[in-house]
Amino acid sequence: MKVQSINAPAIELKTSAWLNTNKPIKLTELIGRAVVIHAFQMLCPGCVSHGLPQALKISRSFAESDVVVLGLHTVFEHHAVMGLEALKVFLHEYRVHFPVAIDQAEEGSDIPLTMQAYGLRGTPSLILIDRKGQVRLNHFGVLDDMLVGAHIGQLLSE
Amino acid sequence: MKVQSINAPAIELKTSAWLNTNKPIKLTELIGRAVVIHAFQMLCPGCVSHGLPQALKISRSFAESDVVVLGLHTVFEHHAVMGLEALKVFLHEYRVHFPVAIDQAEEGSDIPLTMQAYGLRGTPSLILIDRKGQVRLNHFGVLDDMLVGAHIGQLLSE
Amino acid sequence: MKVQSINAPAIELKTSAWLNTNKPIKLTELIGRAVVIHAFQMLCPGCVSHGLPQALKISRSFAESDVVVLGLHTVFEHHAVMGLEALKVFLHEYRVHFPVAIDQAEEGSDIPLTMQAYGLRGTPSLILIDRKGQVRLNHFGVLDDMLVGAHIGQLLSE
Amino acid sequence: MKVQSINAPAIELKTSAWLNTNKPIKLTELIGRAVVIHAFQMLCPGCVSHGLPQALKISRSFAESDVVVLGLHTVFEHHAVMGLEALKVFLHEYRVHFPVAIDQAEEGSDIPLTMQAYGLRGTPSLILIDRKGQVRLNHFGVLDDMLVGAHIGQLLSE
Repeated sequence: MKVQSINAPAIELKTSAWLNTNKPIKLTELIGRAVVIHAFQMLCPGCVSHGLPQALKISRSFAESDVVVLGLHTVFEHHAVMGLEALKVFLHEYRVHFPVAIDQAEEGSDIPLTMQAYGLRGTPSLILIDRKGQVRLNHFGVLDDMLVGAHIGQLLSE
Repeated sequence: MKVQSINAPAIELKTSAWLNTNKPIKLTELIGRAVVIHAFQMLCPGCVSHGLPQALKISRSFAESDVVVLGLHTVFEHHAVMGLEALKVFLHEYRVHFPVAIDQAEEGSDIPLTMQAYGLRGTPSLILIDRKGQVRLNHFGVLDDMLVGAHIGQLLSE
Repeated sequence: MKVQSINAPAIELKTSAWLNTNKPIKLTELIGRAVVIHAFQMLCPGCVSHGLPQALKISRSFAESDVVVLGLHTVFEHHAVMGLEALKVFLHEYRVHFPVAIDQAEEGSDIPLTMQAYGLRGTPSLILIDRKGQVRLNHFGVLDDMLVGAHIGQLLSE
Repeated sequence: MKVQSINAPAIELKTSAWLNTNKPIKLTELIGRAVVIHAFQMLCPGCVSHGLPQALKISRSFAESDVVVLGLHTVFEHHAVMGLEALKVFLHEYRVHFPVAIDQAEEGSDIPLTMQAYGLRGTPSLILIDRKGQVRLNHFGVLDDMLVGAHIGQLLSE
């Protein structure tokens, strides 16, 4: 399997479904804009208390013509209770309006395919893609708003 | 149906299951101690960000011989994705160790039976029961820690 | 010098001035109500970020007929820049409306007289006096709102 | 008097003293690095609770070879109690280690000279200067960490 490395073109998300969008989104269609991917699980406390509010703040803080925010539901544990219907309720209750991809499960593995490809170590993870479509940051855990802002500001001015 | 009023003896919780306890808990067994009931739904944002952390703080702040904290999972919407297995994962992820009762569903109604009996208007709700087993507070929504502390302090000194 | 002990009648504050009140306040005049004394220095970061907001919250949370909040400016360092005029500006800027006593300096000592009498170890300190005029708590440092609320609730119900 | 406009070379600070530095700092000496100026008054609540913690976070978040943080004490009210000695105590108590300039008073005016030159509307104000020495942002009031980070990130990548 191809593995994502920093400064390389972003591997397309491998998804089983999308929510909050009429049609699946390809990263190559977003070239020209910075892309922020918030990888999360709906029952992960750090995602709910930190990562998700940060992703929502990013989407409020920058013009959609500059920065696209995507969610990626990378379920790697407790799969039975974090299915598509549960996620729909979660997104509704938490007023998440940006598109969310469901990371595609692989038979015989707990780790879904995009999570594998990007080498994500857990949730929340933050992936930043520059205007050229290259992955520039792949961060596991909490990152302060100021540093996230600085990364995005840098991508925007390139 | 009997409806709970303030300063009246607490109606027993009507439950379909309990978690974090070996056996169902009867409120009459707790007479002599103050009881705090945090009524919540696992996918209710105000419960997760405010009510639950407050309930956990109560259980850390007072001796178990003085104050008993109970959760009450009162699901009145999105029932399909807030079942027992989902709640188990939620309690595990959020490190909730106190006993949690599952409010018993009523056929043909969205509102479970304890929620009906106590006249709860939504989640989170906070119910306080004094050492004599009488309901003293039944509050819907967010209540500041200082006021919750004051109510509990009052019950303890009676 | 008489030293304050817990559960003993509160020693009167030894003051050189009062702000936010027309006349000096004697603790014996407040018998029948609970009294909260927030001892602080205007340039103490922990007082400004925690103790003072908590004192203001106490004064908002309880009826004045039940709980009286007093400030006590116990300057024990940097005396030259925390004088009366500086304190007036501070109280104005931080919208402190409750009465504030200035702890009386003792010649030849950095520690003012009330601070000595109450054995305060630093700022912020929180002193609680019950309805009978007895000191019940004398706490140095930060105390969570819930615990402060519990102490006050207990005093109120006695 | 020359007035600072956006995208123009930064007017040198007009100062009566500096703290936390051995010698006065000229902005032209800092060309090549981004400069963040936090204009504040030591008894301004918004400065103490928001602006100053943000300035300290900026200085922790970026390398000094990239971003220089300066304080500017622009006293325009209550001058008598915010003098140099009071400020020294304030900086010590709040652990402010970065250089702080004292904005030079003008006889017959409440508004000091740098405040006039930069057209500052109050405190806190945030001034950002790019690597070429040009003022790029002059903001009165609170600005979210993420937006401040984005501005700085943009300056760094130019």
